[in-house]
Amino acid sequence: MEIFIEPIGKLINQFSKLPGVGKKTAQRYAYKIVNMSAAEAQEFAAAIIDCKRKVRYCRICGNYSEDEVCEVCKTRDKSVICVVRDPRDVVAMEKLREYKGVYHVLHGVISPMDGIGPNDIRIKELLARIDGTVAEVIMATNPDVEGEATAMYIAKLIKPLGVKVTRLAHGIPIGGELEYTDEVTLSRALTERKAL
Amino acid sequence: MEIFIEPIGKLINQFSKLPGVGKKTAQRYAYKIVNMSAAEAQEFAAAIIDCKRKVRYCRICGNYSEDEVCEVCKTRDKSVICVVRDPRDVVAMEKLREYKGVYHVLHGVISPMDGIGPNDIRIKELLARIDGTVAEVIMATNPDVEGEATAMYIAKLIKPLGVKVTRLAHGIPIGGELEYTDEVTLSRALTERKAL
Repeated sequence: MEIFIEPIGKLINQFSKLPGVGKKTAQRYAYKIVNMSAAEAQEFAAAIIDCKRKVRYCRICGNYSEDEVCEVCKTRDKSVICVVRDPRDVVAMEKLREYKGVYHVLHGVISPMDGIGPNDIRIKELLARIDGTVAEVIMATNPDVEGEATAMYIAKLIKPLGVKVTRLAHGIPIGGELEYTDEVTLSRALTERKAL
Repeated sequence: MEIFIEPIGKLINQFSKLPGVGKKTAQRYAYKIVNMSAAEAQEFAAAIIDCKRKVRYCRICGNYSEDEVCEVCKTRDKSVICVVRDPRDVVAMEKLREYKGVYHVLHGVISPMDGIGPNDIRIKELLARIDGTVAEVIMATNPDVEGEATAMYIAKLIKPLGVKVTRLAHGIPIGGELEYTDEVTLSRALTERKAL
């Protein structure tokens, strides 16, 4: 005999597909569903279907959008474009409620090790957006090898077009301690030290 | 502007209802769904609906079941009944693959603090099952105040019917260390020491 009856076993398998969810956690989630009202479970399932059906990519910036063009591209200052790797980086930036420009989501970074070249991410689409109205492009890819290389690569393409290209600052995180800062970050913070 | 577009925001809210899931985790789960194929998302949603629709309680033992009577009640030795608080305790017991008897799920324990009395859990149903064929009732409620009280209460009702009532042993967990065993457990292990 199986330990779980089939419908519960199946749901546990589905929950196990979520990132970082093992059997034990999936089991707890499944029990939660079993203990929900039918209406609540229905609503949960509908949210999954809806999310998959309604979410598409903005034609301009590549971020998640319900319409062909996203709210950000429709309403915000188009003279500054912040270039990020993927939509969740847009969320991180938006949480600041400080940035007023638009985005460009690359959907990946150049990574020869993984066989991802410049043509596999949305670089062409970014270049097509650079017209007379764009004043600055902020490279906000992650500060790892691939992110840095991608930022450099794109900067080299855009600078000749007479557009200012900037990069997010790197250094010791606010609230971090010198003692526990990794060497690469500390070395970077030293190199990029500023006059007081 | 909202940080998340509506369908994603709604799905994040749904995932946040799962036990131990905060906003950040819910967000990761939602992204996973967005990046699934439509068929996969459909399958996920269907598993939720199915689980809710197909799972009911066994008429006899109160465990989760697809049929009116569960597989365990249909096929196993009915002379031993293991009494547990809820269906997930059945899973813990079944994982042993050692116990051959049937179960009785109380769906709660007596807890005057929470306003749960003997009539609020499935005690009547348990007594109704005690006929000439039952030889032993194993009380497997949790070893906390409510679990102990419930076990004592039920034992007092069943013993006069001439049925053997037992309780799972308590003591130092296998692999545990004396040094780190809490005092209540250690005191219990001392009281219930056995001759070698």
